[in-house]
Amino acid sequence: MTEHELVRELAEKSSSKIVLVVADGLGGLPIEAGGRTELETARTPALDALAARGTCGASVPVLPGITPGSGPGHLALFGYDPLEFRIGRGALEATGIGFELGPDDVAARGNFCTLDAAGNITDRRAGRIPSEESAAVVERLQAVRVPGVETFVRPVKEHRFVVVFRGKGLDGAVADTDPQATGVPPLEPQPLSAAAGRTAEIAAEFVDRARRLLVDEPKANGMVLRGFAAKPRLPGYEELYRLRAAAIAVYPMYKGLARLAGMQLVGHAKTLDEQVDTLAACWQDHDFFFLHFKYTDSTGEDGAFAEKVKRIEELDRVIPRIEALGPDVLIVTGDHSTPSLLKSHSWHPVPTVMAAATCRPDGFEKFSERNCTRGGFGIFPAKHLMLLAMAHALRLGKYGA
Amino acid sequence: MTEHELVRELAEKSSSKIVLVVADGLGGLPIEAGGRTELETARTPALDALAARGTCGASVPVLPGITPGSGPGHLALFGYDPLEFRIGRGALEATGIGFELGPDDVAARGNFCTLDAAGNITDRRAGRIPSEESAAVVERLQAVRVPGVETFVRPVKEHRFVVVFRGKGLDGAVADTDPQATGVPPLEPQPLSAAAGRTAEIAAEFVDRARRLLVDEPKANGMVLRGFAAKPRLPGYEELYRLRAAAIAVYPMYKGLARLAGMQLVGHAKTLDEQVDTLAACWQDHDFFFLHFKYTDSTGEDGAFAEKVKRIEELDRVIPRIEALGPDVLIVTGDHSTPSLLKSHSWHPVPTVMAAATCRPDGFEKFSERNCTRGGFGIFPAKHLMLLAMAHALRLGKYGA
Repeated sequence: MTEHELVRELAEKSSSKIVLVVADGLGGLPIEAGGRTELETARTPALDALAARGTCGASVPVLPGITPGSGPGHLALFGYDPLEFRIGRGALEATGIGFELGPDDVAARGNFCTLDAAGNITDRRAGRIPSEESAAVVERLQAVRVPGVETFVRPVKEHRFVVVFRGKGLDGAVADTDPQATGVPPLEPQPLSAAAGRTAEIAAEFVDRARRLLVDEPKANGMVLRGFAAKPRLPGYEELYRLRAAAIAVYPMYKGLARLAGMQLVGHAKTLDEQVDTLAACWQDHDFFFLHFKYTDSTGEDGAFAEKVKRIEELDRVIPRIEALGPDVLIVTGDHSTPSLLKSHSWHPVPTVMAAATCRPDGFEKFSERNCTRGGFGIFPAKHLMLLAMAHALRLGKYGA
Repeated sequence: MTEHELVRELAEKSSSKIVLVVADGLGGLPIEAGGRTELETARTPALDALAARGTCGASVPVLPGITPGSGPGHLALFGYDPLEFRIGRGALEATGIGFELGPDDVAARGNFCTLDAAGNITDRRAGRIPSEESAAVVERLQAVRVPGVETFVRPVKEHRFVVVFRGKGLDGAVADTDPQATGVPPLEPQPLSAAAGRTAEIAAEFVDRARRLLVDEPKANGMVLRGFAAKPRLPGYEELYRLRAAAIAVYPMYKGLARLAGMQLVGHAKTLDEQVDTLAACWQDHDFFFLHFKYTDSTGEDGAFAEKVKRIEELDRVIPRIEALGPDVLIVTGDHSTPSLLKSHSWHPVPTVMAAATCRPDGFEKFSERNCTRGGFGIFPAKHLMLLAMAHALRLGKYGA
């Protein structure tokens, strides 16, 4: 019996409410030997109070030693095994710019390139054409029509864009067309399985028509397509957990990931305070609330230890407002660690605290990496967090008599 | 996606260096209630310093409660699931005496026995014939030729020896010929699968020719064969981890296990100091170094608590020399526990310490079983140690975007 089969069997309706606050990249490292991490340095009275009355743990997003991207990191927190449910690159890129993929869609990442008169690539990134110029070329590509499918082209940044093909029976198993070299033409889209034959033909037709349209574009007269992928098939929160789930996120990537799990996007908040306003405003309409805070990750990526500390303190200050709403289960965690020391995502376990009337206290008074490692949840796979959340919300029945 | 698929996808080349020191049977138990283990008794300033600046954990070689032999214990440390990758008894015995198995080999363990005039077994162990007499009989067996294959016969100890059959299309699925009783003849080698028919015939032919040759050997005129097995197919370190791995071991068994994982055997060290000399001498030529120290196990097997303590202290004294080489990741652990109290291998989790600039400190100042259990790696499957080593050496890319 898989974990999802189990939770489908045991999930029960309830009026209890669960709040999952994800401080992106929360976990850290000391910047100097013998020192403290960002979280251990921050003054966090509200988070410490949660630790004191709740249970701590350290979550492993994928496997020990494996550093996750935002996709696998969030899928795990949402209760999906990130090694079983993979989001293809094209689907993640579309998700990241807020394009809502449907069940009949195949998305690919596009790069503009420049081609010489013979059709050979002269620059694989079209001189990193500025975003505004690129957007104008993307605009022209809207006119390309391929019989039998709808196509959507959306700008990303500089030479990068997304193409989405929409039609029955499409399949993401199509090879990249980037030859990874100059002086040769882009590759033809080749099917990697029998089911993807038609998709490869459609992509080839799109590229051909686009090339004829862009023949007079001096800076971007060609393209390569990579990471063809359909929308991953995730069972949704309503189906899996019987939860009406709301997502309160600022950035398109996290909104997209929440949509993949069937959460409803709520509000248009830009700041953390506005996010909590949104939470309060939609409190009656949902059972589960995912609130995403980006800046603990971006400061870590920048290697800005002191800034990351401040962002953690900023988060700490809104915790009492969330508690005032009376959630039955309140979780604060991250999707992965982003130590300022490494200026990147890392594999280190992620500090996690849960406060609920049903928590077994573990004797820690401060929310910190080293306490979490020894906490009542121990070091646990992130994909199990939702089982713990459901249990503490008294939303899971007994397994077996 | 399996762990090996994942690591193949994510492993990156780097100039970082990883040292894995395996103190065989390191873990222990207090000899009296309320007392300390061997490791907790030993004076280990260097290992304690590693614990203070690094991360501790307790590894589980196979599963909780499962006591491993040397084979599964090392396979797990090397990153192979010991329940998935099994080394057949014949292959392990050949490996243990330093016989390098090839891809076309099937090895079996042999026992000399005595047969009466009717061909029935009178002693299944040939009176535990002394090793030097047994070796002379093995020498005679070198003359046995079976058409279509090469055969190798090597002495082990007393009545035990190893036979290796080398030829295309051989298969290890052949039943033991030991009837586990006297007064009956040895069994015929029977194939356990269709693919092993020819191998069984070859083994039968070998036994028949050997019997005719040994008819005048009063102390060992017969044999039984057990544990037929081909070389296990382990993906090697270069292929899996992109590591050029060196093994610095004294005993043939551990050299053999390292060879199965594709490590290169380096040097001819006999003492621990010579092993560290070898490590220093080959430092530039490899990325990964497995250094095996036997005597923490053998003293445990002897039930010699104080001797095991001394051996741990002997190991501690060479740690600064290893650190002086500047490894990016230095790990000290064992392949299993061998508590003096039990005079045998045991299932208890194995104390593990890793020191690296990328370690998250866990607040422990002493390398001991009880600290390791609560350490930053927690209690973890030994097969994940290599993922952690690779991550801390910054040799693994990000999983998913």
